[in-house]
Amino acid sequence: MQADLDRLMAEQKLDQLVIFGPDGLGSVNAAFNYFVGGRHIVGMVIKSRDQKPKLIHGVMERDDAAKTGLDLIENTRWNIKEIQQRITDPFAARIELHRQMFVDLGVTGRVGFYGIADFGSTTALLQKLAPQVPGLIICAEGYRDVIQQARETKDTHELDLMADAGRATCAVVAATQAFLQSHSVHEETLQKSDGSPLTIRDVKRHIRRLLIDHDLEHPGDIIFAQGRDAGVPHNHGNPDVAVCLGRSLIFDIFPRRPGGYFHDMTRTWCLGYAPPKVQQAYDDVFACFHKVVAEMRVGQRTFQLQQITCDVFESQGHSTLRQDPTRHSGYIHSLGHGLGLDVHELPSCPTFSDPGQELARGTVITVEPGLYYPDDGFGIRIEDTYIVDHAGNVKSLTPFSQALVVPMG
Amino acid sequence: MQADLDRLMAEQKLDQLVIFGPDGLGSVNAAFNYFVGGRHIVGMVIKSRDQKPKLIHGVMERDDAAKTGLDLIENTRWNIKEIQQRITDPFAARIELHRQMFVDLGVTGRVGFYGIADFGSTTALLQKLAPQVPGLIICAEGYRDVIQQARETKDTHELDLMADAGRATCAVVAATQAFLQSHSVHEETLQKSDGSPLTIRDVKRHIRRLLIDHDLEHPGDIIFAQGRDAGVPHNHGNPDVAVCLGRSLIFDIFPRRPGGYFHDMTRTWCLGYAPPKVQQAYDDVFACFHKVVAEMRVGQRTFQLQQITCDVFESQGHSTLRQDPTRHSGYIHSLGHGLGLDVHELPSCPTFSDPGQELARGTVITVEPGLYYPDDGFGIRIEDTYIVDHAGNVKSLTPFSQALVVPMG
Repeated sequence: MQADLDRLMAEQKLDQLVIFGPDGLGSVNAAFNYFVGGRHIVGMVIKSRDQKPKLIHGVMERDDAAKTGLDLIENTRWNIKEIQQRITDPFAARIELHRQMFVDLGVTGRVGFYGIADFGSTTALLQKLAPQVPGLIICAEGYRDVIQQARETKDTHELDLMADAGRATCAVVAATQAFLQSHSVHEETLQKSDGSPLTIRDVKRHIRRLLIDHDLEHPGDIIFAQGRDAGVPHNHGNPDVAVCLGRSLIFDIFPRRPGGYFHDMTRTWCLGYAPPKVQQAYDDVFACFHKVVAEMRVGQRTFQLQQITCDVFESQGHSTLRQDPTRHSGYIHSLGHGLGLDVHELPSCPTFSDPGQELARGTVITVEPGLYYPDDGFGIRIEDTYIVDHAGNVKSLTPFSQALVVPMG
Repeated sequence: MQADLDRLMAEQKLDQLVIFGPDGLGSVNAAFNYFVGGRHIVGMVIKSRDQKPKLIHGVMERDDAAKTGLDLIENTRWNIKEIQQRITDPFAARIELHRQMFVDLGVTGRVGFYGIADFGSTTALLQKLAPQVPGLIICAEGYRDVIQQARETKDTHELDLMADAGRATCAVVAATQAFLQSHSVHEETLQKSDGSPLTIRDVKRHIRRLLIDHDLEHPGDIIFAQGRDAGVPHNHGNPDVAVCLGRSLIFDIFPRRPGGYFHDMTRTWCLGYAPPKVQQAYDDVFACFHKVVAEMRVGQRTFQLQQITCDVFESQGHSTLRQDPTRHSGYIHSLGHGLGLDVHELPSCPTFSDPGQELARGTVITVEPGLYYPDDGFGIRIEDTYIVDHAGNVKSLTPFSQALVVPMG
């Protein structure tokens, strides 16, 4: 939680945090969005230990900057005209501007750098800048940096926002199911009113419209994959394929309120009926899902949850990642991942070694066991987003049926 | 152009390029998309000088990886199970995995690093990795790195894709205009069929639907700002405001084909009629726009284009950024920016010093002069995307009327 930041900075002996908010990357820059509330701003956040964060921003974005509630510093405070006329090399001028900013604002001591940025040019900038700012020590954290650690647990307000995103996502999934059911069937294929087959392109386009109706955005590509394609976990579905009865359809959707917190859920559907092989694999995943959820509690280690998942699948006769990480079938990914301002964040569910993450009050994590048999023409995944609330209760934020078979009219 | 990469690498004495394609950032990672064609892949591209690029990718994304046409290396080539069981610290294990990858694939010599990445953890990774890979010299380029230089001019295929995006964008803008015109007016305010006022929220939602109908995506927030808000260049518009007659509406839209090349255009509209002050400012911007376009030719410097723009606005009696970069009114931004896989890329149009960029065959650049008077309740901007084709002709990719007044029923 944000309230933990000063403590985490003290633990890491960090005096300041600098969070980059580069042009065009706002929508994916979770560390920056954590401070500016997802608003589109080009700038930089500077947080000194035990002080309120400051936002350096441009003139053109002063309206959005004012909405962040941060202490504001307009970049016109520095004389860019004088700098650029004196230093005609654009990179050297950029270094000088940053030098003046850092010196003026006292960005010195042990400073951590965060945010999504163009790696090469930002590295070059800091390499040149560091020797010019007295006392500046660049501290790069390799894993679970202080902002990631803060984000790893959510406060009550964040959990409320995530519950809201979950309800809206389920409404979209319900409407998608109703859309599929509204189609007639001709020779096992869903058919549009003009008699042509309903394709995955049509379905995804309809889902995108539903997202707009429900005030959600979906920065990544929705997964809506049928049959063999559902057997490859990150195959997004072939847009030209016609939607058919009796094939496994993996529908994985991860939207958010604009600039906000993500939801993540997956359903596997068979329209009309399920072939016995698919039904059996689905029953196995369903049993595994609920076995794992029953084990979730405060203090449970995510590594253990992944081991339980592998235990269950192996006892059912499926091969797992744990046995052989090079396989393309069976259970071939991890149980889930933290969720928040990023689709994938901490905690993770490691397979091979235990870095010691635990479910805590405020953890939000997906539970998404799956089985993949591309050579048999199917895949199964069931995914809900779970929270551990501040009373220690484990709850799904995904109130939607997990049933496999979707009856057709 | 991509065809220039080997030459650019030789000029910079670079032996290899490593381009990061981290999880979740595909949609904004232009340097990576340049190689993988905008496909959603988590991985890394390695390009050795005078060799075809290689893509390291995961098992789950093998279908998308196969579509890139690059030489493929599945990450199961390295024994992640053995590494993680031997090295239980996740960051240390990540370093070891990368060490094995770099050593196996001969990533050594002068190596440039590119792509959008989490800055802190990527920096920490390379700091630890560098001493463990014999002969590895990390070369960080501060400005106009080799990939940016290659992207700065487009080949014929890229120009065709950009023309296509322009036509689709204009179709969306035309349909938006028709949507506004379809509304009745009550006391100068547009009215929905239920009698309630049409808000900017409604308009943006409709535009988002039109984008889907035309197979475009829009990763950033559309600007649709009225009156005083149009007087602040990056104000995206207040969703609660009702759309009225006779107010300046700035509509700035920058979509792309999914994962592909952007288009960027702005129209300023007054519904029904234009107040004299707004009409006068519009006439000034229109005159400036066409004066600048008349000066565009192969070899023209972008710095000069910005000076011409300032000359015209100053001669019309408007203040400019060139005179005073701290002002909030008048002409307060640069003339335009390169466009391609990023909304903002090179070339830029600097105001204060000339770093020597020139219009070349294959340049794509926006032309977007504007005037901003928030205290008078309006702003004006006209923006088309221009190309310099390979015959040296300067052409607009934005075939849509620039007229200010939109007649209402």
